[in-house]
Amino acid sequence: MGIRCVAIRACGGGKIDTGVPRMAVCPYGAAAVVMALLSAAIAFHCSPLLAVLQRALSLHTAHATKDMDNLFQLVRNIVPALTSKKHKGQDGRIGIVGGCQEYTGAPYFAGISALKVGADLTHVFCAREAAPVIKSYSPELIVHPVLDSSDAVEEVEKWLPRLHALVVGPGLGRDDLLLNNVRGILESTKARDIPVVIDADGLWLIAQRPALVHGYQKAVLTPNHVEFSRLWDAVLSSPMDTSNHSGSVLKLSQALGNITIVQKGEQDLISNGQQVLVCNQEGSSRRCGGQGDLLSGSLGVMAHWALRAGPEKTNGSSPLLVAAWGACTLTRECNHLAFQKYGRSTTTTDMIAEVGAAFSKLFTT
Amino acid sequence: MGIRCVAIRACGGGKIDTGVPRMAVCPYGAAAVVMALLSAAIAFHCSPLLAVLQRALSLHTAHATKDMDNLFQLVRNIVPALTSKKHKGQDGRIGIVGGCQEYTGAPYFAGISALKVGADLTHVFCAREAAPVIKSYSPELIVHPVLDSSDAVEEVEKWLPRLHALVVGPGLGRDDLLLNNVRGILESTKARDIPVVIDADGLWLIAQRPALVHGYQKAVLTPNHVEFSRLWDAVLSSPMDTSNHSGSVLKLSQALGNITIVQKGEQDLISNGQQVLVCNQEGSSRRCGGQGDLLSGSLGVMAHWALRAGPEKTNGSSPLLVAAWGACTLTRECNHLAFQKYGRSTTTTDMIAEVGAAFSKLFTT
Repeated sequence: MGIRCVAIRACGGGKIDTGVPRMAVCPYGAAAVVMALLSAAIAFHCSPLLAVLQRALSLHTAHATKDMDNLFQLVRNIVPALTSKKHKGQDGRIGIVGGCQEYTGAPYFAGISALKVGADLTHVFCAREAAPVIKSYSPELIVHPVLDSSDAVEEVEKWLPRLHALVVGPGLGRDDLLLNNVRGILESTKARDIPVVIDADGLWLIAQRPALVHGYQKAVLTPNHVEFSRLWDAVLSSPMDTSNHSGSVLKLSQALGNITIVQKGEQDLISNGQQVLVCNQEGSSRRCGGQGDLLSGSLGVMAHWALRAGPEKTNGSSPLLVAAWGACTLTRECNHLAFQKYGRSTTTTDMIAEVGAAFSKLFTT
Repeated sequence: MGIRCVAIRACGGGKIDTGVPRMAVCPYGAAAVVMALLSAAIAFHCSPLLAVLQRALSLHTAHATKDMDNLFQLVRNIVPALTSKKHKGQDGRIGIVGGCQEYTGAPYFAGISALKVGADLTHVFCAREAAPVIKSYSPELIVHPVLDSSDAVEEVEKWLPRLHALVVGPGLGRDDLLLNNVRGILESTKARDIPVVIDADGLWLIAQRPALVHGYQKAVLTPNHVEFSRLWDAVLSSPMDTSNHSGSVLKLSQALGNITIVQKGEQDLISNGQQVLVCNQEGSSRRCGGQGDLLSGSLGVMAHWALRAGPEKTNGSSPLLVAAWGACTLTRECNHLAFQKYGRSTTTTDMIAEVGAAFSKLFTT
């Protein structure tokens, strides 16, 4: 496996440079610049992850390979053991909030991805009209046609005590009634301290009302380029430095009270306002719709696993950062495996069919 | 195939110890204790199955293997021969009662499992809203959208004379209207002496009204851990002895008038208040939703087969015990085969795809 992911820790909210995507081919000059920046950072704050990075940046490939393997190991550490002692539900009961008149595929993709990553049960909360269609995609999903009802918040609240994580946004759309109900659902989710991954038009809602997630340490936002810009404009008055992606994701996280942000792109950048993890596991150039749902569903499960495992299993790093990095890596590997088989005709269904193989390859020891 | 299942008979309702999951590795001391208990039991009541067990407990592995093979043979004895003389329907017309607003996958899983085990026809009786979705999963099922209608009992009664067994509960939910209709359907089923397997929220109903099945010798309940506790609390005033699972399932069966109970868990315990069969055929640690539906659907068919075959084919043992042991063994083997292919990403759909191979491996001579 190539070395495609590095981690950088910023100190005291300072601006940092981007990671070095492919260590093995990194030109020495660039590495020297990053080393200088890191040395300054280390003066303020040391962490095991930073030490890993520092060693990786020495450009001794053998060392770099070993050190980067540690990031994979952190993900492996949060994956719950499969034991015969467990009962149904213990490895994850995940809720997906989305699905409306137009969009039915997205919540299915998110829900089935969560199951294939290893959740035991997935509940989808969608608009009435969307429910029979989402159900018809798979008998594995439990689908509640409640999201456009007048008592949507109460209907979802009934289930919240049984859910380990919520994924809000896949196929949500921008209907005011639905968005208003989702606002109430988010408030209830926070009140119960349940981790929540927000994507797609869930992020449209957050751009209207950033206070909904500001400072909520169990929130993860997964914006693409456009969604990231919209969030930036909503919470920061200064223009974005488009030449410094890492710095931007760090800054947006800080502006939102250090919640975890996953900026999806050519490389995925993940930050909690203190660290930036870079993921550029090889995927493919295929950009069909639905890949973000694979990510958000996977991340729903892995966020639960990581928070349950706690920082002692992630070597002191933020569990949600590790979960997000794991889900990004998995999604890109699914994309890669499917693209090898189907090339330009690859769709998200093909990628989801690779979840088992990809997970096993990446995270099963 | 390893030796994974033992049988113990209790006498006069006495409390007994649990079975010995893997005879081949059973320590001599434990075996001696069980032998002592059995010797006492034999003084009251002897049966061919007990004799089998007694020989198995001699710890001569070759003998044990041979004796345990007899339990597989009892299941093989109840499986109807496939002959060219048969007509459609003779090997099983099974009804599934369940399917509501939220749950549509469960009755599909139960129904398709019944067909794949070998039933000829499956009828699903569900709420109107659930019907088109359940139909959409498979053209193999006959689906009746009647369960929430005011004449639901009469609508199902029309079909009862043609059904060999009923599976009540998969995807039933807890809506009062549906539960009340199911109450009437159960009364009619009993009046016609049709075997009935009750699972999921069907067991919720039984916990409210144990009299619905009390003493009905053709009823089989298939509770998981939570459902078992709920039933216990409903019919027994004493606290459950959590260190004695076998004794508990025996006692619950007795308290319900010796109906057959299948307590699903790390190992499945099956009792009619006189015997306890233990099944720990190797499955996997995957605990995704839907596996219970595979079991209940399979058991619906096998209960019919076993009762038709009668005790002369089960060597004097209760046909329903043998059917339940067979269905548990089959379900676990399906889980095992699917998990070998798909690992953590295994879902119930993958397991059901293994029914043919598992059945052939286990029960086809």
